[in-house]
Amino acid sequence: MDWQAITARIEAAVAPHIGSGKVADYIPALARVDPVKFGMAIVQGNGEMITLGDSHEPFSIQSISKVFTLSMALRLYGEQVWSRVGREPSGSAFNSIVQLENEKGVPRNPLINAGAIAVTDMLVAGSNRDAMVEELLTRFHRLSGDTTIWIDEEVAQSESATGSRNRALAHFMAAFGNMANPVEDALHAYFRQCAIRMSCRQLARAALFLAYDGCDPINRDRLVTREDCRRINAVMMSCGHYDNSGDFAYRIGLPGKSGVGGGILCIAPGHGAIAVWSPGLNASGTSMVGAIALEELVEATGWSVFG
Amino acid sequence: MDWQAITARIEAAVAPHIGSGKVADYIPALARVDPVKFGMAIVQGNGEMITLGDSHEPFSIQSISKVFTLSMALRLYGEQVWSRVGREPSGSAFNSIVQLENEKGVPRNPLINAGAIAVTDMLVAGSNRDAMVEELLTRFHRLSGDTTIWIDEEVAQSESATGSRNRALAHFMAAFGNMANPVEDALHAYFRQCAIRMSCRQLARAALFLAYDGCDPINRDRLVTREDCRRINAVMMSCGHYDNSGDFAYRIGLPGKSGVGGGILCIAPGHGAIAVWSPGLNASGTSMVGAIALEELVEATGWSVFG
Amino acid sequence: MDWQAITARIEAAVAPHIGSGKVADYIPALARVDPVKFGMAIVQGNGEMITLGDSHEPFSIQSISKVFTLSMALRLYGEQVWSRVGREPSGSAFNSIVQLENEKGVPRNPLINAGAIAVTDMLVAGSNRDAMVEELLTRFHRLSGDTTIWIDEEVAQSESATGSRNRALAHFMAAFGNMANPVEDALHAYFRQCAIRMSCRQLARAALFLAYDGCDPINRDRLVTREDCRRINAVMMSCGHYDNSGDFAYRIGLPGKSGVGGGILCIAPGHGAIAVWSPGLNASGTSMVGAIALEELVEATGWSVFG
Amino acid sequence: MDWQAITARIEAAVAPHIGSGKVADYIPALARVDPVKFGMAIVQGNGEMITLGDSHEPFSIQSISKVFTLSMALRLYGEQVWSRVGREPSGSAFNSIVQLENEKGVPRNPLINAGAIAVTDMLVAGSNRDAMVEELLTRFHRLSGDTTIWIDEEVAQSESATGSRNRALAHFMAAFGNMANPVEDALHAYFRQCAIRMSCRQLARAALFLAYDGCDPINRDRLVTREDCRRINAVMMSCGHYDNSGDFAYRIGLPGKSGVGGGILCIAPGHGAIAVWSPGLNASGTSMVGAIALEELVEATGWSVFG
Repeated sequence: MDWQAITARIEAAVAPHIGSGKVADYIPALARVDPVKFGMAIVQGNGEMITLGDSHEPFSIQSISKVFTLSMALRLYGEQVWSRVGREPSGSAFNSIVQLENEKGVPRNPLINAGAIAVTDMLVAGSNRDAMVEELLTRFHRLSGDTTIWIDEEVAQSESATGSRNRALAHFMAAFGNMANPVEDALHAYFRQCAIRMSCRQLARAALFLAYDGCDPINRDRLVTREDCRRINAVMMSCGHYDNSGDFAYRIGLPGKSGVGGGILCIAPGHGAIAVWSPGLNASGTSMVGAIALEELVEATGWSVFG
Repeated sequence: MDWQAITARIEAAVAPHIGSGKVADYIPALARVDPVKFGMAIVQGNGEMITLGDSHEPFSIQSISKVFTLSMALRLYGEQVWSRVGREPSGSAFNSIVQLENEKGVPRNPLINAGAIAVTDMLVAGSNRDAMVEELLTRFHRLSGDTTIWIDEEVAQSESATGSRNRALAHFMAAFGNMANPVEDALHAYFRQCAIRMSCRQLARAALFLAYDGCDPINRDRLVTREDCRRINAVMMSCGHYDNSGDFAYRIGLPGKSGVGGGILCIAPGHGAIAVWSPGLNASGTSMVGAIALEELVEATGWSVFG
Repeated sequence: MDWQAITARIEAAVAPHIGSGKVADYIPALARVDPVKFGMAIVQGNGEMITLGDSHEPFSIQSISKVFTLSMALRLYGEQVWSRVGREPSGSAFNSIVQLENEKGVPRNPLINAGAIAVTDMLVAGSNRDAMVEELLTRFHRLSGDTTIWIDEEVAQSESATGSRNRALAHFMAAFGNMANPVEDALHAYFRQCAIRMSCRQLARAALFLAYDGCDPINRDRLVTREDCRRINAVMMSCGHYDNSGDFAYRIGLPGKSGVGGGILCIAPGHGAIAVWSPGLNASGTSMVGAIALEELVEATGWSVFG
Repeated sequence: MDWQAITARIEAAVAPHIGSGKVADYIPALARVDPVKFGMAIVQGNGEMITLGDSHEPFSIQSISKVFTLSMALRLYGEQVWSRVGREPSGSAFNSIVQLENEKGVPRNPLINAGAIAVTDMLVAGSNRDAMVEELLTRFHRLSGDTTIWIDEEVAQSESATGSRNRALAHFMAAFGNMANPVEDALHAYFRQCAIRMSCRQLARAALFLAYDGCDPINRDRLVTREDCRRINAVMMSCGHYDNSGDFAYRIGLPGKSGVGGGILCIAPGHGAIAVWSPGLNASGTSMVGAIALEELVEATGWSVFG
């Protein structure tokens, strides 16, 4: 790969769009992020890392954390995970409650809010509400070799203060017996996992195992089975972007997960992991500039899983 | 690949399940199909074909035809297709009308009934209701080198006679201005395209272009652009199995499309096309034994796009 | 009652609003109606008739016809009617199809389009598609003593030409086995019943039996049983105005039925029948000026059934 | 009225059905109620009270309390109430959350759970969470002349302990800015108002003002305006029984409100107030035997508002 040409091409593609989209403003800590930020990091199995722009700057990973908690839950609980949450795309917004009523409190998939809360609830049940997030942080520290990754407690508290809709989702699941812990315990952990701050470099590095059959190709940690790795990628492809998951698959063709902080994590099986960050979002909460950068990357590398 | 070992493995995997699932019985011509039938054909880019069981026996391709009409429409109309139909998974049954009301007559994707009717309506508008299906047949003849592929007019007529729900979908789209032709003209073509009978061998051969960037690797026909080829595969991955599309991606990890006649078409980009047929269906209309065979194939070959 | 004072009061109340609302424009014959028309007729059990404005001018009764076909069906089929249609408010627009899917083809009530089509289908089944409407006309002729009441065939044909949504509803019911006749036969009768033209005087006179226990107080015809009369009034109260039925009950407190032609029929049990007409509609298809006139009438007379 | 004959007729009508239906069992205090209980009290404007069976025995009034909190809110806040809650029937179960999402956190009406919580939230905002229920109790004491009416705190606590679904509704409304108080404060009051225990005699007596234009005919207290009284009755007619409100209007033809404790309150404008109690419920939470008793009463007295 001529990475110099590829990064130049990506930079050219995103340049006219920098600053477009709408920065999340439901909490102050997200609202004040500079809208013209753009960072990208591509990590390959041999450890080579290609970076663009603000790739070193930590941002709030938000819903991208759901991929990591899902992998923790699959490791700990295996198939039991699927009794708490489905694996079908929802066709709905990230925080919709309609399907929860129709489907008796079982969320459609682990990458919408309700499903991610159910997964976190499983993890909290196995330890406690703080231990679970500590474990996640520790994993990030180890995988990225950087022990400064931290939880932005201001963000966590703001999320909690404005978290009525997530509270409604959790209580609604509780009404159907689909919560093991007190709602506030699970939400405490959930809001904190979403408030982790990482840079594109750290995030791509931490997710590299998903591009290599569940085993980190550099430090050789096996994090999930080969089978579960494939399945996590499948769920990301089907469900990673709420009601524009289909459009993301159509345009980019890689398993991915968006976060409302403007980050997107993508997995190119056998090639590497990519993290991109730019705060302006489209109507479904996916980074607009981030998606453009990924589209260009896939075009340039041929990494789409669809040929 | 040791295809002898692989086919033996698939045969062993499906053997205990032959006859399971429920054969479609809404029309007599489907209901009387022998439930223990099982056929499979894997075609690779060099023309090599691996077959199992009743791979030579023609069956009603039904909704698998939607993949081919979509590729015809993309070739003829390009991006305009997406003004008539979306590309998001529906999360609903194949014939649901609820989302049509919520989304003002624009079907979620081209692989549910409403969306496929809209696509066929585009093709009918470009020629006439019989010419469009003739062209599809001609393409099948050319690609498979077999001019005996035919439309089962009894099936087409039964589909029409029991087609109230598809009629409702079409009139509902018409109410929102999303039909170009009289409803009965579009449905006439739609019911006939679904009534085409092909064997696994023919079907896999006809779809081979989708595994090779839109260009048939044997006769060198370019059928769709490389970009559209990737996109068709993406839509099949997101939406090919109605409300169990997510589960199919999770278990099998290949773009696919099921038909109520018991057929499944799968694309393994860069590797080949696979058709499998066994009449017993699961609750979402996907062949039960067919899915098991594909799961085993993917396990044995490592062809999953997810690693 | 000092009717002179009451009519003056109503005239004063409606004067500032004449012309407000939106005239139905989905077919030319409705669109060209003069928006400043306003007529009202109040008929009491002793035959006394109080009139205001354009009370003699025929208008398209549209959905008000549903009350009369319901009473014909209850007379002919009694309780069987309720196997074809429910009696719960829909909480949805007049032409919604969502609940039909959720409730397996049984419309919520006989006063939304789907339910009225099911009722007409019952009546057509008992005779033929033209005979049923003839019978309805004959009844109107006899009750109003005016044999010039007629069907506006231009309106009927326009309704049919633009009737995709009603066609969708009917085919959808057919898919669940809830149509006895070919869809086009039932719709032919349905479009014609809606196209009947009557004046406020004729309409109020024709509905007088509903204010007197099912028996016309003047010519002594018994049209429905006392029990069914009460029930028709109950259904009108719960369901007569689509998704603003609750608001109509709240504001006016009388059983009523609106039509998109701008007419409203109201029943004041034990007091009389009222028809009002003014073409401008609110968002739910109820005449805006008509509702104001009725509100004033009820305030002045104390005829609300709620005290 | 020959009340002796009427009560005999009612007793004969209910006798074969005593014990039918399903006693609410989601909390122990309701589950252990004797299913064969049946009581009824009819209070007229002159103070005459006709009683049947266990009319003196206190039961948990549950959702019937919603009628009284609505009247308190209308008195205090007038039209402002309708900015927090609608007045259309929901067509859904008592605790459905689907429409809250579609309608941006504004409940359909004040007699479903979400709407009643919003109303209680208004009342709590005007004083405090305990004062509001105290005021309601005081009103009951004064109207019924019986100061022993009490809150069953065991029931209130059980409701709270199993109240996940109501919590979800409240947090969901909060997400749309439709809660003025902390969710737990409003729910504390709501669970306590539902846990009030009253007998049929007390309940009918307390609601008598609704049959007499908002003014208690015995002690002359004006509790709501004549206009609001009519409107409360209208809302009870349209919305008093969740998804069988239409059927209740059809069968009984009086404004009413059911409670899951087996009570039903009915208003016969100008005639009196009726309370009936029998614990076995139908699928929509309305007392089965209670509804039969009311049907018979209406048939015998001709009190239906529909003629």
